[in-house]
Amino acid sequence: MFEQHRETLEKALSAIAGRGYWSAYPESPSPRVYGEGAAERGKEAFESYLGKPFPLDQPGTGSWIGAERSPYGIDLGVTYPQPLPDDLIDAAKAAMPAWRDAGPDARALACIEIVNRINRRSFELACAVQHTTGQAFVMAFQAGGPHAQDRALEAVACGYAAMTSSAATARWEKPAKGDPLVMDKRFTIVPRGVALVIGCNTFPTWNAYPGLFASLVTGNPVIVKPHPRAVLPLAITVQIAREVLAEAGFDPALVSLAVEEGRGLAKDLATHPDIRIVDFTGSTEFGDWLEHNATQALVHTEKAGVNTIVVDSTGSWRGMLGNLAFSLSLYSGQMCTAPQNILVPAGGIETDEGHKSFDEVVAGLAAAVGKLLGDDARAVELTGAIVNPDVLARLEAAPELGEVVLESRVIKHPAFPDAVVRTPLIVRVDAANPEVYGQEHFGPISLVIPTGSTEESLDVLRRTIKARGALTAAVYSTSDDVLDRAERAAVDAGVNLSCNLTGGVFVNQSAAFSDYHGTGANPAATASLTDPGYVAGRFHVVQSRRPG
Amino acid sequence: MFEQHRETLEKALSAIAGRGYWSAYPESPSPRVYGEGAAERGKEAFESYLGKPFPLDQPGTGSWIGAERSPYGIDLGVTYPQPLPDDLIDAAKAAMPAWRDAGPDARALACIEIVNRINRRSFELACAVQHTTGQAFVMAFQAGGPHAQDRALEAVACGYAAMTSSAATARWEKPAKGDPLVMDKRFTIVPRGVALVIGCNTFPTWNAYPGLFASLVTGNPVIVKPHPRAVLPLAITVQIAREVLAEAGFDPALVSLAVEEGRGLAKDLATHPDIRIVDFTGSTEFGDWLEHNATQALVHTEKAGVNTIVVDSTGSWRGMLGNLAFSLSLYSGQMCTAPQNILVPAGGIETDEGHKSFDEVVAGLAAAVGKLLGDDARAVELTGAIVNPDVLARLEAAPELGEVVLESRVIKHPAFPDAVVRTPLIVRVDAANPEVYGQEHFGPISLVIPTGSTEESLDVLRRTIKARGALTAAVYSTSDDVLDRAERAAVDAGVNLSCNLTGGVFVNQSAAFSDYHGTGANPAATASLTDPGYVAGRFHVVQSRRPG
Repeated sequence: MFEQHRETLEKALSAIAGRGYWSAYPESPSPRVYGEGAAERGKEAFESYLGKPFPLDQPGTGSWIGAERSPYGIDLGVTYPQPLPDDLIDAAKAAMPAWRDAGPDARALACIEIVNRINRRSFELACAVQHTTGQAFVMAFQAGGPHAQDRALEAVACGYAAMTSSAATARWEKPAKGDPLVMDKRFTIVPRGVALVIGCNTFPTWNAYPGLFASLVTGNPVIVKPHPRAVLPLAITVQIAREVLAEAGFDPALVSLAVEEGRGLAKDLATHPDIRIVDFTGSTEFGDWLEHNATQALVHTEKAGVNTIVVDSTGSWRGMLGNLAFSLSLYSGQMCTAPQNILVPAGGIETDEGHKSFDEVVAGLAAAVGKLLGDDARAVELTGAIVNPDVLARLEAAPELGEVVLESRVIKHPAFPDAVVRTPLIVRVDAANPEVYGQEHFGPISLVIPTGSTEESLDVLRRTIKARGALTAAVYSTSDDVLDRAERAAVDAGVNLSCNLTGGVFVNQSAAFSDYHGTGANPAATASLTDPGYVAGRFHVVQSRRPG
Repeated sequence: MFEQHRETLEKALSAIAGRGYWSAYPESPSPRVYGEGAAERGKEAFESYLGKPFPLDQPGTGSWIGAERSPYGIDLGVTYPQPLPDDLIDAAKAAMPAWRDAGPDARALACIEIVNRINRRSFELACAVQHTTGQAFVMAFQAGGPHAQDRALEAVACGYAAMTSSAATARWEKPAKGDPLVMDKRFTIVPRGVALVIGCNTFPTWNAYPGLFASLVTGNPVIVKPHPRAVLPLAITVQIAREVLAEAGFDPALVSLAVEEGRGLAKDLATHPDIRIVDFTGSTEFGDWLEHNATQALVHTEKAGVNTIVVDSTGSWRGMLGNLAFSLSLYSGQMCTAPQNILVPAGGIETDEGHKSFDEVVAGLAAAVGKLLGDDARAVELTGAIVNPDVLARLEAAPELGEVVLESRVIKHPAFPDAVVRTPLIVRVDAANPEVYGQEHFGPISLVIPTGSTEESLDVLRRTIKARGALTAAVYSTSDDVLDRAERAAVDAGVNLSCNLTGGVFVNQSAAFSDYHGTGANPAATASLTDPGYVAGRFHVVQSRRPG
């Protein structure tokens, strides 16, 4: 039915194998790309939801719930059908056989149609992401739209590749005395069962799409449980998925939304005997709980970590400072990939602008952040707003972690008077205080830590990441030997490493189809977006053989 | 170093993708294949172990333990070094980085060298398997030798395929204003961590090799914990693996043996924080315990099930009876794949020899078993001996399950006077007694169950296998429609199906590289030998990127 998407599928399959640059969905919100008026129509669509029940035709209790408030200071007032979990699960199970029987190709092509339609609604989704996460608009568009869509397509391709890695039928002829033994064999992909995706507050689409589409393409119905503060982007997503599935003749119950106002639904769903897959992004505490308690399910979690930068030396002093300042400032550091621990030799570093003392490195970084965010109107387009009161409370308490070397600044948002906007705080912490830098301080908080040497920095990286995990690490050095040793430390710690980023690539950004997000090899995550381990357990092969 | 095995690896990779017939290790114990004197030398090697400490150079407590007794009535008297679990784990961890750094190709080729050397010692291993499992010699040779070796090579190939499904390096060039953004990327396969393989009594090599080699090829050290009654085959295996690894310059601590006389070591090891992978074959009770308690590890279990035969009609009455009789008799039904529940319409079936009533079907099957095992000297070469007292006790209690339609017969083994040999028992059980046929009765016990119709038989198959699992199912029918409906029931139940086996292919045998063993889609097992889900979680990808 969606045979026109075959070429996209083939390109995505080539991309995940080759790992070079490829993207299916343009990241520029320009009218030249998405058409004149697209931005305005998206904003209107978003505004049409406010203060109303969200148009979603799924069974529920009859109550409509929801209490989202934009970090920009607006109550969204959107309500959603309160679900009866057993009803959602029963409906999902009933929908499963026809979806299974459709086979990998039909499922992959239908999934691509869903992602394509999501892409067409990128502006509407960007507004929804902006006003649930606090991301600035362009970031909400890119990370919440095309980048998330690329990750969705990547998951579809990875799932498809795993399902089709062996022949679907075969003739087996074994030499024997007399006639050979001949059997005709058929291998059917069957889903693991109903899947649950538990979304997060900061990246509701980007972090939910890989699990959603990896499960769906491999034949599993998916129940999407958004974070109570970031429902709308996933409600729109679920609406689109249901629409496409129904048009294609499938039961829309294959994808449903499970909203809650309070807490508890995620635990109940995740440990339900009929929930066989759980994908979670959020706190280490709840991720660990899921890993230990949802033992009936395949559980993939992405949790907290201590992302680390090792500064040894640089051939581009200004490039390094500018690049790091951007990484600290983007979305006020509220990214699971944002740097936290910046390790610098106490004796300073060599640069293309001469030797810089530790204090000069710190002052240079502080100045670079200050310069980047010097103009309030431009600054808010980079920092966005603080996502929720927990992050604000953490930021306000953070000066006690050590010696403040860059204070966080309150910015008045020119367009949203009630928005809570803060610039990054930088605190100097002694290497003797691992209890401080050995844990995550999620938000616009980073720590500069003087070490005895780059070797000690690499030891700290190894030790802290092995113990607490990390999604990213980076190193700056002009020495190939140091880069090699940093790579070795990263391999030991199981963390993805970026080297000498001084231009337009940032440590907190990963490109779908080429960069892996997380590794599974350290405590920050159990798998990677998207590697074979992320998709393979979501389906099984059932074989039938008949004499040939 | 073992570059000469490249062709074998390539052939194995083609075989797992194409699923046609292929085998690397000849299953015939003929001297024309394995050489004159090979059988005698193997027997001598086996006998040289008896009554002595087994030559294994691994650290331990200083105590040597072991209490294996052959089901053929001989005390083996072999002792093994009692391990200190923490020492084995620490040594394994220390050995891991160099094995990881060797990369997928070197590891795969070294694993093939290990399997090849195991193959050369097939006769020695056959004796060890025979005298720990009770299998007859030829079966011990085939299933414990070449068939297990093929499964080992299959696991190596599947692991290699998963590790190499994406490029190891890539150049990423993203178009940008001005110069493109260029990054050179490297992707390193890293192991999950120390693996534990828990062996079983009946197929010590066949069921342990897939986990052992899947973990090893993906970079993980492996601790092999054999069943206390079936140590020797795995001790020989571990000895060979350590020898090859040491010759190749690796630390032999990559593979070690963890023997116990009593119980408890498996639990202690499986829940150790540094054990990251567990492969288990055995009881449902302990398998379920591992799934719920070894939450720090990737756990793959193969447990009990209710293997089911649906008899609807047949175009080869004699072929069907002969084939079923063989499947019931082989190794006295002590196979996880042996049929247990035989569902036959109460109104009888149509055959190429006319209509047969239910009683005629049962009588025909009983007569076929009786004929197959009529000659004691030939019978023991098919049935082997009863593996342990638990199976014997179950068999002795089984007449109470229903109405006995074929009694189990005691056979005196002509060569081993103390061997415990029994022929299969067949009991008629009413369809109204699901508490009887809804659970596994491991051993030479099968149940014939009259049903209202083939449709009811398929319902019983669906219901019992969804609830209790199964490794195999089979159907006999001359109707394509019934075969299609049986396939659908098997897909719903998540069980592998064999249709109309009347010749030299048996429901309890699966061919490596083509047939999957288990599916993971029903409670009998969490994964399949060997599918992508079995290998993928054993490794991770760690990436590094540098400006290009």
